[in-house]
Amino acid sequence: MNIHVLSLFPEMFSGVFGSSILKKAQEKEAVKLSVTDFRQFSNNKHAQVDDYPYGGGAGMVLKPEPIFNAVEALVADGKKPRIILMCPQGERYTQAKAEELAQEENLVFVCGHYEGYDERIRESLVTDELSIGDFVLTGGELAAMTIVDSVVRLLPGVLGNDDSPVLDSFSTGLLEHPHYTRPADFRGMKVPDVLLSGNHAKIEQWRMEQTLKRTFDRRPDLLEHIELTPEQQKYLNKLKKL
Amino acid sequence: MNIHVLSLFPEMFSGVFGSSILKKAQEKEAVKLSVTDFRQFSNNKHAQVDDYPYGGGAGMVLKPEPIFNAVEALVADGKKPRIILMCPQGERYTQAKAEELAQEENLVFVCGHYEGYDERIRESLVTDELSIGDFVLTGGELAAMTIVDSVVRLLPGVLGNDDSPVLDSFSTGLLEHPHYTRPADFRGMKVPDVLLSGNHAKIEQWRMEQTLKRTFDRRPDLLEHIELTPEQQKYLNKLKKL
Repeated sequence: MNIHVLSLFPEMFSGVFGSSILKKAQEKEAVKLSVTDFRQFSNNKHAQVDDYPYGGGAGMVLKPEPIFNAVEALVADGKKPRIILMCPQGERYTQAKAEELAQEENLVFVCGHYEGYDERIRESLVTDELSIGDFVLTGGELAAMTIVDSVVRLLPGVLGNDDSPVLDSFSTGLLEHPHYTRPADFRGMKVPDVLLSGNHAKIEQWRMEQTLKRTFDRRPDLLEHIELTPEQQKYLNKLKKL
Repeated sequence: MNIHVLSLFPEMFSGVFGSSILKKAQEKEAVKLSVTDFRQFSNNKHAQVDDYPYGGGAGMVLKPEPIFNAVEALVADGKKPRIILMCPQGERYTQAKAEELAQEENLVFVCGHYEGYDERIRESLVTDELSIGDFVLTGGELAAMTIVDSVVRLLPGVLGNDDSPVLDSFSTGLLEHPHYTRPADFRGMKVPDVLLSGNHAKIEQWRMEQTLKRTFDRRPDLLEHIELTPEQQKYLNKLKKL
């Protein structure tokens, strides 16, 4: 997979793209990551990328030319990539979208910073508009890094056995049960007896119940989208009566 | 404000913490950012920070000692900071939480990576558990950077006039209207006439309508939480009939 990022702050990406799984994924040639400063695609002699909004008002707006030019330079080989605009008005990013994007060969992320986008970028250039949540960021860079991380870890060969997805709450559709490791007694706080019992059937039962309890307590909305086994349904009914 | 991050991959933070608004905020002394590798707080001679889960199963679990020790070293001066665990099971992060955290003097972020957390960290150490969304990341680092960015930009004196929050969809509770800047005609795509008219009342009317239309089309859920003016309500009723 090829991932191209367009940003006015390319230096923001160095730490994240050069560490951990994203570093390994590039070493294994599962992904090529590149970051381009789209200021260099401004035809303006002052390398201007933004301008005042028509109709007045506060703030600056990113001009269409530099971003159109930068994207066109990336796709000069005729391939039509997914071109993703990071913006608060976009579709909410979820694990389902991560799995969809992981099927693509070419992704381009367009990151604004402070400014709004000229509407023509939205209408005529991009294929997707994505948001990672209802909060205000300084720019699209952190949102793009977040999506890149979540997509690249799904690519074949990227996660080794050591990187087992113990945090994968959203892959099963339910939240994870509690985990414990040594010591069995830490400052008087003890690991539940069942986990030390060696009785695997009981351990599985406990984990299933804890998974349901945690999901019921914290994210009952997730239970609406999942098919439960009769045993799970029975335990859930019990929780609802408490 | 002091923000401390605990992570096994401190190098991930360099680009984001050293650029743009976060860089400026540190120069202006509005915030102190520090990142600590909690591996150095392991008492184990192999600097081990994780171990196998009690009860068996895939994946490793972060041990309680290094994280308890690291947090206690940070709060040795007796202050009780907010201690925030980044995890998919946490409360969904929103702009309201950003505004709440911006009132604190000390924030500590605990970032796991691949592994689960020993439950005792959750039960007895942290004050908050936060998630930025329903997707799986390699670790909590990107989620912590995202929260830090959104909180620090709210601190007094951090955003100058040049950084006007044109993207602040979630501050008004509605999505932004479209923006346009020069050229008025870009490859045949034209700026709406009203924005070139100089008629400010008409421009305001157009923007109000576009704001409502975009929110209605993309995020109707936001309209449930907001009080509309009679004029806005009238336009919304018209949209609903289309």
